[in-house]
Amino acid sequence: MIPRYSRPEMVAIWEPQTRFRIWFEIEAHACDAMADLGVIPRENAEAVWKAKDAEFDVARIEEIEAVTRHDVIAFLTHLSEIVGADAARFVHQGMTSSDVLDTTLNVQLVRAADILISDMKDLLAALKRRAYEHKDTIRIGRSHGIHAEPTTMGLTFARFYAEMSRNLKRLETARAEVATGAISGAVGTFANIDPAVEEHVCAKMGLVPEPISTQVIPRDRHAAFFAALGVVASSIENIAVEIRHMQRTEVLEAEEFFSAGQKGSSAMPHKRNPVLSENLTGLARLVRMSVVPALENVALWHERDISHSSVERTIGPDTTVTLDFALARLTQVVDKLVIYPENMLANLHRFRGLVMSQRVLLALTQAGVSREDAYRLVQRNAMKVWEQGKDFRTELLADPEVTAALSPAEIEEKFDLDYHTKHVDTIFQRVFTE
Amino acid sequence: MIPRYSRPEMVAIWEPQTRFRIWFEIEAHACDAMADLGVIPRENAEAVWKAKDAEFDVARIEEIEAVTRHDVIAFLTHLSEIVGADAARFVHQGMTSSDVLDTTLNVQLVRAADILISDMKDLLAALKRRAYEHKDTIRIGRSHGIHAEPTTMGLTFARFYAEMSRNLKRLETARAEVATGAISGAVGTFANIDPAVEEHVCAKMGLVPEPISTQVIPRDRHAAFFAALGVVASSIENIAVEIRHMQRTEVLEAEEFFSAGQKGSSAMPHKRNPVLSENLTGLARLVRMSVVPALENVALWHERDISHSSVERTIGPDTTVTLDFALARLTQVVDKLVIYPENMLANLHRFRGLVMSQRVLLALTQAGVSREDAYRLVQRNAMKVWEQGKDFRTELLADPEVTAALSPAEIEEKFDLDYHTKHVDTIFQRVFTE
Amino acid sequence: MIPRYSRPEMVAIWEPQTRFRIWFEIEAHACDAMADLGVIPRENAEAVWKAKDAEFDVARIEEIEAVTRHDVIAFLTHLSEIVGADAARFVHQGMTSSDVLDTTLNVQLVRAADILISDMKDLLAALKRRAYEHKDTIRIGRSHGIHAEPTTMGLTFARFYAEMSRNLKRLETARAEVATGAISGAVGTFANIDPAVEEHVCAKMGLVPEPISTQVIPRDRHAAFFAALGVVASSIENIAVEIRHMQRTEVLEAEEFFSAGQKGSSAMPHKRNPVLSENLTGLARLVRMSVVPALENVALWHERDISHSSVERTIGPDTTVTLDFALARLTQVVDKLVIYPENMLANLHRFRGLVMSQRVLLALTQAGVSREDAYRLVQRNAMKVWEQGKDFRTELLADPEVTAALSPAEIEEKFDLDYHTKHVDTIFQRVFTE
Amino acid sequence: MIPRYSRPEMVAIWEPQTRFRIWFEIEAHACDAMADLGVIPRENAEAVWKAKDAEFDVARIEEIEAVTRHDVIAFLTHLSEIVGADAARFVHQGMTSSDVLDTTLNVQLVRAADILISDMKDLLAALKRRAYEHKDTIRIGRSHGIHAEPTTMGLTFARFYAEMSRNLKRLETARAEVATGAISGAVGTFANIDPAVEEHVCAKMGLVPEPISTQVIPRDRHAAFFAALGVVASSIENIAVEIRHMQRTEVLEAEEFFSAGQKGSSAMPHKRNPVLSENLTGLARLVRMSVVPALENVALWHERDISHSSVERTIGPDTTVTLDFALARLTQVVDKLVIYPENMLANLHRFRGLVMSQRVLLALTQAGVSREDAYRLVQRNAMKVWEQGKDFRTELLADPEVTAALSPAEIEEKFDLDYHTKHVDTIFQRVFTE
Repeated sequence: MIPRYSRPEMVAIWEPQTRFRIWFEIEAHACDAMADLGVIPRENAEAVWKAKDAEFDVARIEEIEAVTRHDVIAFLTHLSEIVGADAARFVHQGMTSSDVLDTTLNVQLVRAADILISDMKDLLAALKRRAYEHKDTIRIGRSHGIHAEPTTMGLTFARFYAEMSRNLKRLETARAEVATGAISGAVGTFANIDPAVEEHVCAKMGLVPEPISTQVIPRDRHAAFFAALGVVASSIENIAVEIRHMQRTEVLEAEEFFSAGQKGSSAMPHKRNPVLSENLTGLARLVRMSVVPALENVALWHERDISHSSVERTIGPDTTVTLDFALARLTQVVDKLVIYPENMLANLHRFRGLVMSQRVLLALTQAGVSREDAYRLVQRNAMKVWEQGKDFRTELLADPEVTAALSPAEIEEKFDLDYHTKHVDTIFQRVFTE
Repeated sequence: MIPRYSRPEMVAIWEPQTRFRIWFEIEAHACDAMADLGVIPRENAEAVWKAKDAEFDVARIEEIEAVTRHDVIAFLTHLSEIVGADAARFVHQGMTSSDVLDTTLNVQLVRAADILISDMKDLLAALKRRAYEHKDTIRIGRSHGIHAEPTTMGLTFARFYAEMSRNLKRLETARAEVATGAISGAVGTFANIDPAVEEHVCAKMGLVPEPISTQVIPRDRHAAFFAALGVVASSIENIAVEIRHMQRTEVLEAEEFFSAGQKGSSAMPHKRNPVLSENLTGLARLVRMSVVPALENVALWHERDISHSSVERTIGPDTTVTLDFALARLTQVVDKLVIYPENMLANLHRFRGLVMSQRVLLALTQAGVSREDAYRLVQRNAMKVWEQGKDFRTELLADPEVTAALSPAEIEEKFDLDYHTKHVDTIFQRVFTE
Repeated sequence: MIPRYSRPEMVAIWEPQTRFRIWFEIEAHACDAMADLGVIPRENAEAVWKAKDAEFDVARIEEIEAVTRHDVIAFLTHLSEIVGADAARFVHQGMTSSDVLDTTLNVQLVRAADILISDMKDLLAALKRRAYEHKDTIRIGRSHGIHAEPTTMGLTFARFYAEMSRNLKRLETARAEVATGAISGAVGTFANIDPAVEEHVCAKMGLVPEPISTQVIPRDRHAAFFAALGVVASSIENIAVEIRHMQRTEVLEAEEFFSAGQKGSSAMPHKRNPVLSENLTGLARLVRMSVVPALENVALWHERDISHSSVERTIGPDTTVTLDFALARLTQVVDKLVIYPENMLANLHRFRGLVMSQRVLLALTQAGVSREDAYRLVQRNAMKVWEQGKDFRTELLADPEVTAALSPAEIEEKFDLDYHTKHVDTIFQRVFTE
Repeated sequence: MIPRYSRPEMVAIWEPQTRFRIWFEIEAHACDAMADLGVIPRENAEAVWKAKDAEFDVARIEEIEAVTRHDVIAFLTHLSEIVGADAARFVHQGMTSSDVLDTTLNVQLVRAADILISDMKDLLAALKRRAYEHKDTIRIGRSHGIHAEPTTMGLTFARFYAEMSRNLKRLETARAEVATGAISGAVGTFANIDPAVEEHVCAKMGLVPEPISTQVIPRDRHAAFFAALGVVASSIENIAVEIRHMQRTEVLEAEEFFSAGQKGSSAMPHKRNPVLSENLTGLARLVRMSVVPALENVALWHERDISHSSVERTIGPDTTVTLDFALARLTQVVDKLVIYPENMLANLHRFRGLVMSQRVLLALTQAGVSREDAYRLVQRNAMKVWEQGKDFRTELLADPEVTAALSPAEIEEKFDLDYHTKHVDTIFQRVFTE
């Protein structure tokens, strides 16, 4: 996580103050539940809530931790300084550190997921708006980077919308994956703490109890979480690469918004570089890089080893912060992307009708020409366009073998752009109304 | 994919014959739909089905492809050899190669997912059986590889069951991710083919139409598919590592089944090595390695580039075949795992009661001793056990500061193993009845 | 490894017959060394060489392995069938299976590295030839996909040459990493076999003795090997992406060679798709995917666990075969790449001189204009070119603030292309003469 | 990078102040070289050095960047505020931002590599010391986690020493990979700047000139750099896993040093957890995760795109800081590791002589028994030890088929531990004297 690629709301989730706040809530709710069970006195449980509005002293906690080398004990010691030793005496009773730490991590991941889900909805709104705006803006479709057949800019936005809709579902699934808590003791047997405590704490923290935990919540959940984020990142890259292609000098079908004061380059003032989209490509790599360590974290030894912890301390914040930033940046890029429909048309006509060859091929076949012959006829005329700069339509009209099969009007009709957009509404219907 | 780690049913999905069979079905169903639409003559559509029970000549197709360098054209040429040029003349009309290739890949992945789902159910059945069998078999729980508190072998199996239940859901989600087909033409606009053809073919092939495709089906779907398989693989590793730990000489709480003729090592005949579990650890790495390239496949250029293809030709078969094999092997390992309850008890008592220190600590706290003091008392006696080989219970009973807070009966009670298993039924209830 | 992306010489290294041949040589050389030491009778050692020219019966060995479940024992049994039980009785004495298996793997990797090194030299030759051929072929340099300043096609080839020269060194280093053998017994102590045997076998097999082994050769060596291959793969992708960009319709500065019979697409006969380069992009992903499992293989338990084995059975052949194929394909693509110098010039002039803005900026600064002012002047005129289609040179000549600082001749000089190529020879000198 | 896993010296390399300092030095040296060439006035070049001892105002630079959105321009503006507009007027002349940025990154990576190399030497010293200290400390070697044959703790340290020696070489190679600089202008042609400037700057900054650059230094260098760090990380994991195994309760052959005030766990005071080694396992994953994005960074578009930048802003600091911390932590763990030789012996004798079965097998073979028979005899007696708790030596002495081949003295000799350590000196010689 670096400030340049961070937004405050997501960063706040991972700050020490937030973490200690969640720790406190878990401990205090656990005390309530234990009081309900009659395990600890009600007044002690209530007294703990004195810290409800306290600001925890992060420096003080770190100071204690430097001695005890144990973060939860350091926090509990500090809490006892706030609420008093007597009130604090039953705090954490029967619990193990991981009960607090793991439940907290999941609270943080759930909150992070909520932001990401909200980001994704913003992105979807932008994509939808731009899709409808350019529903009928003709551009050439390309496979292998080579002109194929006409499509529309709206369809491009629509397919990104569809892809991001799937990612929204993946994020929602990912959120559910980690929306569990565990207060089950040293090896998950509830030996020293009643399952009712876990149920109460989870309900209060917006989680469901982990059906079976060890000392920790099983890490396949987190692996699935980060894997989902990795897929989202790849889709971000997908859109970013499209924009970078559209903006390259020879294509110039779109440009990222260029703010007034911005200098594109110290040396080449005329250059408008798609730096945001390039940046998104890099950020996608950063988000994705958490997937492998998250997968490697799953196979812990017996009831837990702590190898996962340093990984999560890093990828927990870094990956969610980076993805949040990337989604927001992408939304802005999409929202403000400057589209050049006239350049799209110019590009489409660059090879004088060649992109209609598929239609002509089909028409010849339907007119009774064998597939092999039709292929040969189309190829013959196409090569004249390609190599000698001829016009495809003109050549076809002058080729007796072609005109033997197709009338001039039939040939002309093959160059009608509306032919290619006739199902755009159907596709929009599929994508936007579910 | 190597024969040693392959099972025939999964391998068959990826054989050329199967692929050509699916290609044929897609083309034939498309002809039917086009006949329904009146685009091609009914009799031609019907004539194509002459190849329904034909064995495709793979060598012949490869021969044609060597000339045309195009696999779908090679197949269509061969198909025309089977059904006759006249019957074949409308086959593939308005379609693009990727319509066939991508829909076929998804049919294969769906079939592969079905096998994996079935494998997973077998594994779940084995885990459940072993869980109930050893529900009350006491063993020591370990964190950091160090003895913590008692748990049961049944809980170990139960948590693997819960983890694999989540993986079953992930596989089902993964299956749905790729259960789409597309017959939408060169850039996905349906310019040359009616959406009704896509609908018909998809329905027949057990797929849903891709809401919006380009020349290809979007690859975020496949990325999500392989990411899910990567998570499953990590869970396999998780179980494998547990077994490897249980079988290590000093622990010996379980052993992989050792068949009669098997020689463990050419040099050390007494060794029974957990080679299957070690192998599963390696196979998990192999399955996982497909995740990154699958993520890298998402960002294709414009309406498609073909960089994804070689990756999928490899990871499609290799990853599903390896995971199928691994799941089946793991099921066998779990099913036949030899459990040594007596060794579990011996291990548990290895440090003469020390594992009960958490309970004693709690009891002291509840008896009014401050947390810091209780910690000190427990630590003091624990160190005697650890360093001088004393018995923990005996030491506690002889420590006046301890007995000032706890009666002998109270101390004795802390060493009762039933205390740790009292919630096993609750946990089983949670895991096995949903 | 799939046939489509494989070449026979590399495949042969990984075939069972080759593997058994290497096993045999290791065992026979070991017998010689043991005879030299007087540990076994000379005549037995000599008798083993009776199998020197034998074809090993792979099916028979697999048959035996199906019973013994141990590959080395199966092979030794078969060897004993060939040379006779008496001759075979001292074979493998004091050795452990891994002595044979690990030394064999390294022999295979060294041979594979030799092929890759040879491939790389072929590629370097092609790059060098094309570099000199197009040393002075002007094209526009691009950053962010946007026109920057002129460069030459020769420089492009030259930088790929320099990059691949580094990769040649990396491959040579990688080869040295794995060019070790170990015949050190069950845990690497030489308890049952003299270090002299290891020295003899290694010398004969073209390896150096591993300074210290356990049951296995340490896997950091193999991790470094596959990591190096991953870097090579990324460089392949780098060249492939350049070619794909050059071939895209709007750029068209180069095309992959298009053979006579080849059909680019079933539907669009005019399309010449850079499918080889796209394929290379995918193959690069496949080669790279071995890096992570190879890294995960390093941390084996104690003196070895066998988790690495299944990984290496797969990535050993697959990665080297794929990289060999990719290097050969890339060499062919580079060698036959069709370059279009006239299109390069047309692209360079696309924005009527704008690409010279950096020079003008510098000239203004040197003529005494402040950097901020110079920037403003250049930007002002550049925007007219960009937005209104004006010619940059003409605009500058008509801008009194510009002409106040620079004479017409000075302005004209800024548009001289030779200015940009004046150091090409220097760079070629650096790259090609070391 | 998180403070918990960071050391100040490495962190300092990546702080803004250091970065701006390096930028300044590059610009100032470039001015010197330009003055040498007569391109700019000597007094201006000299005047720039007024900022030699200045503290750059990071906040001010960020303030300017917020407007210009260009970091190098922001810095140059600030520099001009320090040295005066007149002195600054020729700074950066003919250069492009990447000349500064890329050369700076490499200076930082070289400095980081120097620290890592120094760390590695410290680790090697610790490993060597412990190796000699425990050269003859007998412990059981294990394959598959199962007892195999005796080895010594010194050999374990020695093999880690050998592995880390290889990693030292890899780090030195990695350092050389990135020890290049480039001052070659917008697309690497030196159009606006003489190659002599690059040579001068590189010499002053401890770099060699990049033979051929584009706008940027080629990223295969950085990929190789991070790949090397990934291999080092895996070796760290290798040692960490060994220690974790040694410390597990049932093995207890070593323990991490346990400081006085440290509390192992809030709940189980007797537990001494190998948390540092577990942490190192996690840190290894973090270091490794930079390898894939570094590989993905290689294929930039044409003369550069900026996708690599955000990746490097993150993995540059994070990976080197984490690896530095991990190496230092590992050195401390190794240095202070508490070894329990008596537990090693107890473990070795756990199965009453079974670990000598390999020797007995060999002896039987050498005494004329066929391999199959010898195997059967050893297995027969071994199983009695394994299953019935018998003593292996006693059983062998009582087995007439065994004693028919071997005399009692010969049998006794097989249980002599010195047999296994006789080549330890030879191995130490190989490892420590090169």
